Formats: sequence, C-alpha cells, structure tokens
Amino acid sequence: MPRTNGERTPAHPTSAKQRQRYARILRSAARLGAEHGLERMQMHDVARESGVAIATLYRYFPSKIHLFAAVMHDQVLRLDAGTPAPPPGTGPVEAVTDLLTGASRQLFEQPLLALAMMQSGNVSHLGEGSPARRTDEILMDLVLRTAGVTDPCERDRRVVRILEQAWYGLLTTVLYERSTVEAAQEGIRLACRLLLGPILAGRGTRRSPIGTGRGF
Amino acid sequence: MPRTNGERTPAHPTSAKQRQRYARILRSAARLGAEHGLERMQMHDVARESGVAIATLYRYFPSKIHLFAAVMHDQVLRLDAGTPAPPPGTGPVEAVTDLLTGASRQLFEQPLLALAMMQSGNVSHLGEGSPARRTDEILMDLVLRTAGVTDPCERDRRVVRILEQAWYGLLTTVLYERSTVEAAQEGIRLACRLLLGPILAGRGTRRSPIGTGRGF
Repeated sequence: MPRTNGERTPAHPTSAKQRQRYARILRSAARLGAEHGLERMQMHDVARESGVAIATLYRYFPSKIHLFAAVMHDQVLRLDAGTPAPPPGTGPVEAVTDLLTGASRQLFEQPLLALAMMQSGNVSHLGEGSPARRTDEILMDLVLRTAGVTDPCERDRRVVRILEQAWYGLLTTVLYERSTVEAAQEGIRLACRLLLGPILAGRGTRRSPIGTGRGF
Repeated sequence: MPRTNGERTPAHPTSAKQRQRYARILRSAARLGAEHGLERMQMHDVARESGVAIATLYRYFPSKIHLFAAVMHDQVLRLDAGTPAPPPGTGPVEAVTDLLTGASRQLFEQPLLALAMMQSGNVSHLGEGSPARRTDEILMDLVLRTAGVTDPCERDRRVVRILEQAWYGLLTTVLYERSTVEAAQEGIRLACRLLLGPILAGRGTRRSPIGTGRGF
C-alpha cells in the first residue's frame, strides 16, 4: 500500500484560483488513474497534465492515497448532485437499487480508477475531517434521501451503513475479478431488498408515506 | 499495495517435512504480522524466525500478499475446524451471529494482523485455486452449516455472500479506526438478523427444521 505520509497536513484550496487548480488536479488524477491505476500512475504526470508544480501537488495531496480519496470524494459529490428524485411511482427499494446499480455500472467502466478510489477510501489516518470520512456520510444521506427517508433514526443509519459495506464488498469482488458484473449487480439488488425492505416497511406515521411515493 | 509478483507460481508443500516447514512459516508470519503489520514486517525476519532459507520462503510465497493470504486461509480453516455445533436451542440467526462476532473479537485482538490478512485476501491475481478464493468458500460453508442449512440453494449462497461482504466491511471500518468495535459488532448482529432471517424463515419442507434446532 502506498505510503500516506500522514505526518503532513494537506493544504486546502481557498481562493477561486486555488479551487480551479484543485479541480484540474482531480480531473487529471481521475483520467490518469483510469488509465494506469493507483500503483503505476505517477504524481509528476498528474502535476504536468494539470499544469501545477509538483510541490504544489504534494502540498494538497501528500500521497496518491490522499489524491484518490479526494477524487472519490469529488465523484460522490457529483453523484449526489447529479441524482434526481426518482420518477413518480418508483418504490423506495427500487429507487435505491437503481442508484447503486447505476453507480456500480459507472465504476465498472473505469475499473482501475474504481480500484484506486476504493483502495484509498478506506484509509482513516488521513485524519479528522478527511474526504474519506465525509464521503461515507454524503453517500449515506444520498441513499436515505433516495429511499424517501427524511428523518432517519439511528437504526436506519446503521442499516444503510451495512448496505454500503455490502455494496463496496460486491464492487470489490468484481474489481478483483472474483465475480462477474452480473452476479455483483444481482447481489446489490438482493441486498437492497433484504436490508431496506424491513426498515421501510416498519416506518411509523411520523414519517412521510414512503411506501407509496417520494418523501421529498 | 505491495507487489504480488504474480508471474511466479508458488510452490506447494507435499512431503511431511515440507508441510511442517510451511506451517512454521505461517506461524511466524502470523506472529510477526501481528507485531509489525503488512508493510513493516520483513520477509527475511519470517525466514529467520521459522528457520527456512529466504529462497525457500519466496518459493512458497512470492510476496507478502501471498503469505498473508495463506495465513488468512489457515486461520479460516482453524475457525472452521474449531467451531462446534451451536448449543441446543440456539436459533440459526443467533448461532451465525455468535460465530461472526466471536471471530471479529479474535481479529480485533490482533488488528495489524487482521488488516494484513484483509489487505491480502482481496487479491485475485494470485490465480485460480489460490488460498484467497478457497477462503471465501470455506467461510460460506461454515456460515451455512452454523445456520443449519444443509442443502443451500443459489439464493442462500448469494445472501451469505452479501453477509460476508458486509462483515468484511464492518471489520474494516474498525481496523481503519473509522468506527468503534461496539458499533461494528452491533452492525454484524443487525446484518445477520436482516439478511439471514428471510432466507431461514422461507425454507420449505425439504430442509431440516432449522427454526427449532440444529440441522446437523
């Protein structure tokens, strides 16, 4: 596993110019990561392609792990922003299934990038407030929102966390070529049904009528 | 991630003497892995402690990834052999919950070793018939047997695979210090209930009465 250089605290972009530069870096990393994967991608190629000095790149991302954790964070933000409310009449389990199988399909299109992000997303010693931690939360909120759960209780969150873990695991089996895409997608559908079915069926009257329509 | 040197085909022990040497290597790797973790543990320390030449060690295990995949395989075999039939009156969900939370507890006692095994267990390019692949199958059979499912159908296997993935994921969140042991164990209990409940409840008459007793 690449070193994380956990000692250094990554810089954060603040000015508009810095944010543009940061976004360029993430785009280059996504492109080069999709082409070469975590191990073979070179930081100096990212610096060159995004037009920043190598020292600047390392100031934002002390390691490739930091860089791909940030790429993952960025892609989850995009998924969150780009996911419309499900069409009317879509049940909550179906809506979450569509969300996760659709996201999986996109990830499978760029397997080396997906693997790089997943290898990086697990690393916690990036510290408090790291992208990796927030990525989980964004994804959880997106799943809950897609299921129409507007006021999740602690148990709902725990169930969605299990679903997320199962989803990551099933993705991983495909990325490491230990199962087929079809088997994994079928597993995701089954996991949504088994895990979300009970929490959605057991909702009380305080909540919006998620069984029949959208909660937002 | 450490190199896997996938080109070389690992040797397998055949004679009694070779098997003893192989077992000594696994014991040393488990001890040193628990102390130093995947990255810091040195192959030459494993060779020295187990009393084999470094060339012999590399002939069996071309990389640390191969070595820890084999350690994991060995530990899953031990778990399988060391798991007695659940006490009479234990329900199938409770029995699997006890199995997985108990195994988790053991893993959490040696977090660096657990992490080393999990980082290695996912790697598929160890080739067909690699320990990693068989480990999954042993664990699945153990879970099914513990649940008293003696004649699993394809759906049962798919559900248990989801449970395994969720379990790995929950373990990982603890090992990467992104959740507490208590939260993960609670997640495992919930996952067992939600995932296994339906498959066990929906069993037909062809199967043993797993709801009330042990199927084996």
